[in-house]
Amino acid sequence: MTKTNTGNFFEDFTLGQEIRHATPRTITQGDASLYLALFGSRFAVYCAEPFAQELGYKTTPVDDLLAFHVVFGKTVPDISLNAVANLGYADCRFLQPVYAGDTVTTVSEVIGLKQNSNGKTGTVYVRSTGTNQNGETVIDYVRWVMVRKGDPGAPAPDVVVPDLPNRVDPASLVVAEALNGGNFDAVLAGSRHLWNDYVAGEKIDHVDGVTIEEAEHMTATRLYQNTARVHFNQFSEKDGRFGRRLMYGGHVISLARAISFNGLANAFSIAAINGGRHVAPCFAGDTVFAWSEVLEVADTVNPTIGALRLRTIATKDRPCADFPAEVEKGYEEGVILDLDYWVLMPKR
Amino acid sequence: MTKTNTGNFFEDFTLGQEIRHATPRTITQGDASLYLALFGSRFAVYCAEPFAQELGYKTTPVDDLLAFHVVFGKTVPDISLNAVANLGYADCRFLQPVYAGDTVTTVSEVIGLKQNSNGKTGTVYVRSTGTNQNGETVIDYVRWVMVRKGDPGAPAPDVVVPDLPNRVDPASLVVAEALNGGNFDAVLAGSRHLWNDYVAGEKIDHVDGVTIEEAEHMTATRLYQNTARVHFNQFSEKDGRFGRRLMYGGHVISLARAISFNGLANAFSIAAINGGRHVAPCFAGDTVFAWSEVLEVADTVNPTIGALRLRTIATKDRPCADFPAEVEKGYEEGVILDLDYWVLMPKR
Amino acid sequence: MTKTNTGNFFEDFTLGQEIRHATPRTITQGDASLYLALFGSRFAVYCAEPFAQELGYKTTPVDDLLAFHVVFGKTVPDISLNAVANLGYADCRFLQPVYAGDTVTTVSEVIGLKQNSNGKTGTVYVRSTGTNQNGETVIDYVRWVMVRKGDPGAPAPDVVVPDLPNRVDPASLVVAEALNGGNFDAVLAGSRHLWNDYVAGEKIDHVDGVTIEEAEHMTATRLYQNTARVHFNQFSEKDGRFGRRLMYGGHVISLARAISFNGLANAFSIAAINGGRHVAPCFAGDTVFAWSEVLEVADTVNPTIGALRLRTIATKDRPCADFPAEVEKGYEEGVILDLDYWVLMPKR
Repeated sequence: MTKTNTGNFFEDFTLGQEIRHATPRTITQGDASLYLALFGSRFAVYCAEPFAQELGYKTTPVDDLLAFHVVFGKTVPDISLNAVANLGYADCRFLQPVYAGDTVTTVSEVIGLKQNSNGKTGTVYVRSTGTNQNGETVIDYVRWVMVRKGDPGAPAPDVVVPDLPNRVDPASLVVAEALNGGNFDAVLAGSRHLWNDYVAGEKIDHVDGVTIEEAEHMTATRLYQNTARVHFNQFSEKDGRFGRRLMYGGHVISLARAISFNGLANAFSIAAINGGRHVAPCFAGDTVFAWSEVLEVADTVNPTIGALRLRTIATKDRPCADFPAEVEKGYEEGVILDLDYWVLMPKR
Repeated sequence: MTKTNTGNFFEDFTLGQEIRHATPRTITQGDASLYLALFGSRFAVYCAEPFAQELGYKTTPVDDLLAFHVVFGKTVPDISLNAVANLGYADCRFLQPVYAGDTVTTVSEVIGLKQNSNGKTGTVYVRSTGTNQNGETVIDYVRWVMVRKGDPGAPAPDVVVPDLPNRVDPASLVVAEALNGGNFDAVLAGSRHLWNDYVAGEKIDHVDGVTIEEAEHMTATRLYQNTARVHFNQFSEKDGRFGRRLMYGGHVISLARAISFNGLANAFSIAAINGGRHVAPCFAGDTVFAWSEVLEVADTVNPTIGALRLRTIATKDRPCADFPAEVEKGYEEGVILDLDYWVLMPKR
Repeated sequence: MTKTNTGNFFEDFTLGQEIRHATPRTITQGDASLYLALFGSRFAVYCAEPFAQELGYKTTPVDDLLAFHVVFGKTVPDISLNAVANLGYADCRFLQPVYAGDTVTTVSEVIGLKQNSNGKTGTVYVRSTGTNQNGETVIDYVRWVMVRKGDPGAPAPDVVVPDLPNRVDPASLVVAEALNGGNFDAVLAGSRHLWNDYVAGEKIDHVDGVTIEEAEHMTATRLYQNTARVHFNQFSEKDGRFGRRLMYGGHVISLARAISFNGLANAFSIAAINGGRHVAPCFAGDTVFAWSEVLEVADTVNPTIGALRLRTIATKDRPCADFPAEVEKGYEEGVILDLDYWVLMPKR
């Protein structure tokens, strides 16, 4: 029996199957520093202990997306090593802050299976749950991927497609009671605009563009121990679909979030990701821009903190002053990401 | 009102104005590691807790220049987003070590204003002060930048040009009483040459050259949360003045300091920066070299520790064995930095 | 007297000489994060505190190779600044885990000298010992390098060539009594294959290939404060032997170890390095692959933990499915590293 991990094929997944993923990970201040340096995020809660404590955190939480990428990275060797495509995310909720010193592990449950009519591939739906060392769920999300069959003759499983919400209900967003938006120092955070100042339909160009290098996206992706081969192996990718290494989609999400500081500086935390599409691939040398639309403005269980449902669109080599988005078929040239998520912002 | 930061224009500054800059920052061991790995500095005080404690520090201080870059980075969105040129620094004093876990914030005061005769730009002088979580000033410096006017018709302010010292008086350098140069292990520090061995006029070629990559200078500059656009955006810079991303001038300062280890290994700390000129731009792919001249040798308030006033010149793609410096008009080809500063070194 | 370190020449070494190397180094969680992000290692013991503690460690040890590279890096300015070639390693033993917060220093003893018949160079054998802040040896190894003479007329020393073991005796491997292989969670570690499942003669293709960037190998090598000039200075190397910067050989060792996770996931620690050859140089842009052969299977002093003696061969731009190795003269095209070492793995 080979000792090398060849990943799971479509027929290896069964409904209800629970997969404990390898490599528990203690997230440290070192990880937080590296994440900050790779993306240049400036949201004060992730950067400054007294600021975070004043708002009500125990200490500085790590960036929500760093925690997400670590939870996600663990699933790759078991779920998507033989994936043809990442089809979508849904119902991603951030349930507990992750602090330096916390150890995260991930378990996935297969919640849907649907073989494709070509008989060569199928869609696998998993709910993946990241848990800390106290057994508390920190992040919980569904993703679905198209996976190759290893044995084309393997029988098709019963079709089960999970019913997934279009968006996380804002009433269900976890916002700790301990957080007090009234203690938020907006000047130190970088913007005078609080939750009350945003309205649904409002569009914000985040202006700044950031060019990405191979060393940067590979370093970030390894930090999460995401082992998907397309990101790292130029020798094989030179003969692949793009002729080059493909950037991890999550890298674009993190860049877009960091860029969105300029216009959303007080969006101190991500509470949920409703869904996302990687519209086009991104490569080293591309310059990423972003803009956001406020889709909804909502209260949360914490009266001092509101939620904004944002749609952030990232582009490559295309500034966003004119808010590029969908066109008749697909998206405008240059669009690479269309992300729908909830952020938290103090109320005035 | 736009929610995107458009920065301040010349007419937005008023004499005596105090600006609290965004994003307080807890500097961590992760930041120190990344800084070390980006510059390869080997000064033992920043690297080894027992060594630092033996000398009299509470624990390992972070590199003085890391602290400086963090304090400086915060000022960029408010002071120099619309700058045409960084004109100078002066009177920069390092007043307290920064330790991992300390949180730094920066406040700037406008101490001078002078509109240019063209009516389109003006020089803004600010004194910026970095403070730790205990309210202690850690770094204090003056810089002046040429900033565009947003409205050409805005009236010119009264001309106020601050009187700035040519150099920080060595008697005013802060050298903690707790430091005991007699406990300094020069072998472990990397050189047998102590303060007594250096004489004014002495020139030292630091020999080593270091080539810089885009990923490195961008990662460093993001670590400091310095958001100046010219460093990050190849899409816009390809049509800019240089056709490419410009390296943060502070990156060259840090490289020169790290390179200066070879010849100044016992210069364990920077006590002040008297002034500096970025003579020419530096780009990824350039190989940086450096040499230093000892300008002054001085006592400090601590009898076991002396000060050297150094002039360090950095070049690109040009070794420094012949000590390149000024020529009739400007500088010799290849010179990129001319820095005047005080370092501390144990006495024998 | 020049204040710049010009390194030692062959005639500067004397038998029995002890050299205390500069720059003691407190290894931190920041270093561990950066190491992880540069190599993507997934061995759980280095990544997760509860996992490490369950196995019997005090807390998460840093990667054995990070500790090795730090211990090694310190020797470069004194031992190999004027080296023509790194000829070999032997008898490298890992005697104590290194934890974040430990401070490592290195001392070398000259244990052999042999001038070459050309009279221009000679081989220097040193035993280098890394020690922690408690005076405990953490790593101990022999290396030999060919060093230039500074003065061709200097007399040749008596020839002394140390007797070195072909391999470290597995009975002498240090395996702490506190480690309990029975507590090892193989699912979390990433493989069901324990020590009992490996047999001598078995070959494993590690499959994955990783492309290296200049920024990555330079950042790693600076993290260890290894100052060998060929790694950093494109200006001089463009006219050198290869026309470009040469990657530190240890970078390839770390890459091979990280890649070997796929097939050796439970090899939780390196206990010794028996020897190694850098068969060919490696440069930025190369894609590194690796395969391993199990040379020996041995018990250790700890009945719950076994040892595997591995030979890991790394290649560039050449997948390893057919296990490339020596041919009649030298090695197959593409082989860059041939490493012989002992790893520890829990018994069933």
